[in-house]
Amino acid sequence: MKISARNILKGKVVSIVKGATTAHVRLDVNGAIITASITNEAVDELGLSVGKEAAAVIKASDVMVAVA
Amino acid sequence: MKISARNILKGKVVSIVKGATTAHVRLDVNGAIITASITNEAVDELGLSVGKEAAAVIKASDVMVAVA
Amino acid sequence: MKISARNILKGKVVSIVKGATTAHVRLDVNGAIITASITNEAVDELGLSVGKEAAAVIKASDVMVAVA
Amino acid sequence: MKISARNILKGKVVSIVKGATTAHVRLDVNGAIITASITNEAVDELGLSVGKEAAAVIKASDVMVAVA
Amino acid sequence: MKISARNILKGKVVSIVKGATTAHVRLDVNGAIITASITNEAVDELGLSVGKEAAAVIKASDVMVAVA
Amino acid sequence: MKISARNILKGKVVSIVKGATTAHVRLDVNGAIITASITNEAVDELGLSVGKEAAAVIKASDVMVAVA
Repeated sequence: MKISARNILKGKVVSIVKGATTAHVRLDVNGAIITASITNEAVDELGLSVGKEAAAVIKASDVMVAVA
Repeated sequence: MKISARNILKGKVVSIVKGATTAHVRLDVNGAIITASITNEAVDELGLSVGKEAAAVIKASDVMVAVA
Repeated sequence: MKISARNILKGKVVSIVKGATTAHVRLDVNGAIITASITNEAVDELGLSVGKEAAAVIKASDVMVAVA
Repeated sequence: MKISARNILKGKVVSIVKGATTAHVRLDVNGAIITASITNEAVDELGLSVGKEAAAVIKASDVMVAVA
Repeated sequence: MKISARNILKGKVVSIVKGATTAHVRLDVNGAIITASITNEAVDELGLSVGKEAAAVIKASDVMVAVA
Repeated sequence: MKISARNILKGKVVSIVKGATTAHVRLDVNGAIITASITNEAVDELGLSVGKEAAAVIKASDVMVAVA
């Protein structure tokens, strides 16, 4: 599958915290930590676990820019 | 200002393409290129230009995870 | 690639309108028309054209529910 | 109320799972299952229940496109 | 139509700027100006014009919080 | 920090409900109540509490418009 999302950032899973319906998954991407809030179901379906290679996928319209 | 968004990825602007109302801004973050689709107004208001330090800011609920 | 997004709706491209930076792509999914607003670049990179099979991909946290 | 969101997909509620604050609601839209992640409050306020007619509402800028 | 989005902020249209595909609509809500980036099509379909009563509709998961 | 998000609405926190991973924070902005769904972590990191001044931050592409 090839997707229109402009941002596909490859890294590794460093933590997974499941809530009642929503999980927080952290990826290490080139040393930067990226947090994703996804469904518990998706965590199970993708077989995510700490240390596994995975990518953060982000639509360009969901990215803001900030300056100091 | 301190914001609830979990992802604040520091980098540099590498390109800016303005459309009629919407601009595409690319940041180099640790070697990864991140594309943001923001308003032309925001580009002007933040004084964005190629080479300038800037951060990509992304809410955790807007990040998906993918595996190969 | 397998993605955490809960909604992957298979259909066919029925129209593509490119703007200055942003394109509107319409898919027919089981008779329902779904409109996606994506970058012109993504249209080119995916080689989208009318009649081509494609899927609408939507994160569950971006779906609202309405009743009459 | 008439809304700017381009995608209003009519269907029926097939399941509701409430978490601590966030619920997952599944709709059957022309045979496709669409998952929405909404607040528990919204589930109560809309009086959602399995079998009830409801629509999935999605802003065009939240729809991505993928090809095989 | 009753929608799950938690934020429905009533106001008046104060400006509309159409781009090639995407329009920026500004609403005055209790003295605060809210900018919406929507499709040109939606502007036409809703019959939006300066001075018209309209509401900004925002899903709770799209709202961030900031402190000074 | 200065951010590209077009909507920064200043107000006060009126309620905070924490779930397992996701919290709902309500702000009073000029008499309008705005609900944000953010991570529990962000609530802690920003030191949010009832009565505290805070702003709702919303990207323009996440705002829809509705008419009666």
